[in-house]
Amino acid sequence: MRIIKLGASITASNDKDAAALRARLKEDGTLLVNVMSSAGSGKTTLLSRLITDLQDIDIAVMEADIESDVDAKTIEALGAAAIQVHTGGMCHMDAVMTTAAFDAMGGRHDLVFLENVGNLICPAEYDTGAGCNLMILSVPEGDDKPLKYPLMFRESDLLVITKTDTLGYFDFDLDKCISRVRALNPIIEIFPVSAKTGDGMAALEACLRKKLASWREG
Amino acid sequence: MRIIKLGASITASNDKDAAALRARLKEDGTLLVNVMSSAGSGKTTLLSRLITDLQDIDIAVMEADIESDVDAKTIEALGAAAIQVHTGGMCHMDAVMTTAAFDAMGGRHDLVFLENVGNLICPAEYDTGAGCNLMILSVPEGDDKPLKYPLMFRESDLLVITKTDTLGYFDFDLDKCISRVRALNPIIEIFPVSAKTGDGMAALEACLRKKLASWREG
Repeated sequence: MRIIKLGASITASNDKDAAALRARLKEDGTLLVNVMSSAGSGKTTLLSRLITDLQDIDIAVMEADIESDVDAKTIEALGAAAIQVHTGGMCHMDAVMTTAAFDAMGGRHDLVFLENVGNLICPAEYDTGAGCNLMILSVPEGDDKPLKYPLMFRESDLLVITKTDTLGYFDFDLDKCISRVRALNPIIEIFPVSAKTGDGMAALEACLRKKLASWREG
Repeated sequence: MRIIKLGASITASNDKDAAALRARLKEDGTLLVNVMSSAGSGKTTLLSRLITDLQDIDIAVMEADIESDVDAKTIEALGAAAIQVHTGGMCHMDAVMTTAAFDAMGGRHDLVFLENVGNLICPAEYDTGAGCNLMILSVPEGDDKPLKYPLMFRESDLLVITKTDTLGYFDFDLDKCISRVRALNPIIEIFPVSAKTGDGMAALEACLRKKLASWREG
């Protein structure tokens, strides 16, 4: 009996496409940052703050959504290049979709953020070709999320804990959350921030500058 | 050339399994409520409050998670029957998985809540066999979610807007959110609540009592 492992085949093919996109972006000196999180964790608000703060870097944003273009409009209003990707109901971006988005966007940029579909599960399973995986966990979501959605925490290089201005309001233990994350991924870099007040943004921005520099050198 | 529509086939088979489970539950007088939302919207907190308030109804909870059993332990501590379902990485529950969970749980209950995997996208695509789809949107997630994840709002019978005690803190326009939801689904019943303060819970609980009564009569 022949057994066709379709899941594995799709992933293997995706991994090849992702490697090809990554090589192309390396050549161009473009760092692609894949931004993943649950819906409503503050992805667009964080990106808006980064665009405003990092004026000397040419930033573009690819907004992946099932429907609507509200986020792309928000980004464009800040003067950054933005492209809206509709995933046709798909709950994640893969490497082929990301490559198509780059082709459609055109031009050359230093730092490109892919705002993935709001979903703490499926996007973690697909390599998009990004040079850096950045995940967001917002304080209102709760400090138990590393226990329940471990893959996303394992696959990410950076964790941004957003909405820290609400820490006094929600029952969220920052130390407990960080130790749960570290148990899954000892080398992840963690940045508690409030994009609203600006608290913690400087450290995250310094890290992104460093990532961009080492992407171009390495 | 033969074209195999695998997606359609999976859904058709799932629809059949869902109908079979629904018929069995109707026979038993058990109302299954499929609770769907993004991660961290307060599903377990809402269910805890309902269990505490509806002491005269025999309630059981099926907790679907990719990993961990923190939610099932929370529910059990309240004295309700709880079963933890691990989805093996799957981002949603389907009818076969739900039927297996019922078989494993055993016993007979009036109201069974299926706490689906925290994900605003994929669970909306699969009929679990439930008699009622209840979705949660929490205030910190933002009032634009109906624009971005329309299917979940279309497929739900009840929308519970949670964490309303934080309305003063977040930029969330309740009226705008409700009109966006009504544009997608004119007959959805909407309940703004705070499981923390108890605000709005009485109306939701009255609705669930009515749903259970009509499920048994109809």
